Amino acid sequence: MADADRYVLGIDIGGTKLITGAVRIDGGDLVGLRSTWTLAQTGADDILQRLVAQVREVIADLEHARPGARLLGMGIGAPGPLDREKGVVFLAPNLGWRNFPLRERLFTELGLPSALENDANCAVLGEAWRGAARGVQHVVGVTIGTGIGGGLVFDGKLFHGASDCAGEIGHATIDTDGRRCNCGNYGCLEAYASGPAIALRCAEQIESGAESSLTTILGGDLSQLTAQMVYDAAEQGDDVALDVVTSTARFLGVGIANLINILNPHAVVICGGVTRAGDRLFVPLRREVARRAFKPAVAACRIIPGELIGTAGVWGAARAFLDAHPAIDA
Amino acid sequence: MADADRYVLGIDIGGTKLITGAVRIDGGDLVGLRSTWTLAQTGADDILQRLVAQVREVIADLEHARPGARLLGMGIGAPGPLDREKGVVFLAPNLGWRNFPLRERLFTELGLPSALENDANCAVLGEAWRGAARGVQHVVGVTIGTGIGGGLVFDGKLFHGASDCAGEIGHATIDTDGRRCNCGNYGCLEAYASGPAIALRCAEQIESGAESSLTTILGGDLSQLTAQMVYDAAEQGDDVALDVVTSTARFLGVGIANLINILNPHAVVICGGVTRAGDRLFVPLRREVARRAFKPAVAACRIIPGELIGTAGVWGAARAFLDAHPAIDA
Repeated sequence: MADADRYVLGIDIGGTKLITGAVRIDGGDLVGLRSTWTLAQTGADDILQRLVAQVREVIADLEHARPGARLLGMGIGAPGPLDREKGVVFLAPNLGWRNFPLRERLFTELGLPSALENDANCAVLGEAWRGAARGVQHVVGVTIGTGIGGGLVFDGKLFHGASDCAGEIGHATIDTDGRRCNCGNYGCLEAYASGPAIALRCAEQIESGAESSLTTILGGDLSQLTAQMVYDAAEQGDDVALDVVTSTARFLGVGIANLINILNPHAVVICGGVTRAGDRLFVPLRREVARRAFKPAVAACRIIPGELIGTAGVWGAARAFLDAHPAIDA
Repeated sequence: MADADRYVLGIDIGGTKLITGAVRIDGGDLVGLRSTWTLAQTGADDILQRLVAQVREVIADLEHARPGARLLGMGIGAPGPLDREKGVVFLAPNLGWRNFPLRERLFTELGLPSALENDANCAVLGEAWRGAARGVQHVVGVTIGTGIGGGLVFDGKLFHGASDCAGEIGHATIDTDGRRCNCGNYGCLEAYASGPAIALRCAEQIESGAESSLTTILGGDLSQLTAQMVYDAAEQGDDVALDVVTSTARFLGVGIANLINILNPHAVVICGGVTRAGDRLFVPLRREVARRAFKPAVAACRIIPGELIGTAGVWGAARAFLDAHPAIDA
C-alpha cells in the first residue's frame, strides 16, 4: 500500500491543551487537527474521556477528508517520567496521573496500537522530521515553557539513554551555587530561563525599585506577572523587560554552549513561547554561545527557533509511533 | 582467517609518552606493549622518527611472539583538534605539530593503512571495549590530566557529532561567572578540576594562610606544586589537601551530573591520575551527582574509575581502526 494511503495519529497531551491530528506516514499531510483545553482540574478520567472524544473526531475527519485512508495506530506524547515499554505514565501532577496505564486505557477505548513517548522528545522529533531541523543529522532540541525540557535526535532517531531520561536539559547546572530550582537543587538552567523564572526575575527587579510599565499594567500585583507580559513589554521598549530578555538569552546561551560542547550537533532548535522574542533573544543568545563553546563546534551548529508552532508534538508523536514500528516503512 | 590470527596496532601519542601495542581484533590479546618518552622539545620530525622506531619494534615483537599473525593496520590516537577524514592533526602545541599530515607520514614510513582518532575518544573507547565499561551500552568518559577531555560511546561506537568535536566536556560551564579558564572563558569544569587547576586551588589556600605539610615539602615554592602532590598529601591526612580533593569531587560531580541529565548513560568512566584519590574522590563525587541529577538517571548510571591504566588509549586506537574499517569484522 502506498504511503499516501496510510496515516498515524499524533496525540499531544499537555497540561494546558490536548491536541490531535492524523499524519500521513511519509510526513506529507496533516489532517483533522483539533485542540481543546485540558482542564486539568477535572481529573484523570475526565481528561481521558475528553481526549478519546477528540481522537474519535479526528478519525471521523480523516475518513471524510481522505476516503480509503488506512489508520495504522497512534503516537502519544505525554509529560514524563514514563515507561515507554509498558505504556505507563509514572507521574504527571498537572493531569492527576500517577502510574497511569495510558496506552492500555486508550487501546481499550479506541482499539488501535500505540506508542508512548515523552512530550519534549515528541516536539523535538517533530521539528527534526518536518520542522525547522528537517533533514538535519544530529539535532538537540530545547523546549521552554513552565519547565525546560529537551530531546536528542541523532541520525533521525530519538536517543533515549539508559532509562528514557536523556535530554533533561532544564536541570543541568549552569551555576553551581546559583538560584534554587523547583527540583530542589541550585543553579539549574530551568531556575533562570523557564517561563515562571523569567517572570520571577522581572518581578524581583521591579520589587527592588526598577521603574517599569509593568507596574502600572499589573496594578502593583506582581504575582500576576507572566513571561508573556515580559516579552510584550520588551517589545514596547520597557527597559526592565528588555534587561530580563537579554539576561534570559545569556543564561540560555550558557546552557546551549554546554550542549554544543558535549554533543557537537548540527542544529539546536528552541521551542516555546520564548522564541516570540525573536532577534532580541537570538542575537545575544548566539553571541553568548560563540563566546563559550568550542569554535569548530559553534561553526557547525545553527541555533534556530522551532517552526511547527502548536503542532510539533503532534508530528513528533506520529513519528515516534513509526519509529517504534520499524516494519511499517519496510 | 580466524580472529586469533589478525592484529591491529594501537598507537597512543601523548605530550608525555608514546605508547604502542598490537591488539588482536577480537580484543583478547595485547602484544609487544612499548612506552617511551615523547621528549616534546625535540620537535615534530624527531618525535615522528621515535614513534616509527617504536612501531617497528612492536611489529618485530608481534612476529616473534605470534608467528603467522597478520597485521591489518594501525589506529592512531593523537591530541586534537584533528581531521579524521584527511588524517591531519590541526594543532598539537605540545608536539610542535600544526596541520601535520600524520596519517600520510606514517603510511610513507610503515606502509600500513591507518585511522586517526582523538586521544580522549580513544581512551574512552578502550575502556568501553575492554576496560571498566566493557559490555556497557551507553558510556560517557571523562579524561582528567593537564586538561579535561571526554568521549561518548553509544551502542559500542564513538559519537563524533557534526565536526568531530563531541565530548568537549572540560569546557562545559559549571559556574557562569566563575574562574577564568585557559580557553579564555569563565567557569569551565577544566578551570576547577584539571591537574593544574587542582594544584592552583591548593596553592591559593596555602597562600591565603592555611597550614599545610606541602609548604615544608616545597620549601615555600608553591609554583612547583602538582596535583599528584596534593593527592599524596591528602593520603597523608593533610587538611588543606583533603579539602581540595573534596572540592574537586564536588566540581566534577556538578559536571558529571550535567552529563547524566543530558545523556542518561549506563556508565560514566573517569580516567586519569585523579582516580588515584579513590574513595576520597568517588564518595563525595557520587554524593554530589545524586543530589543534582534526575533520580531515574542516577539509578541507571555507574560512576567508575578506568581500569586500563596506561593502555586505554592503545586499546581504543586499535578499536577505532576496526570501526573505521567495518568490512574487517565481516
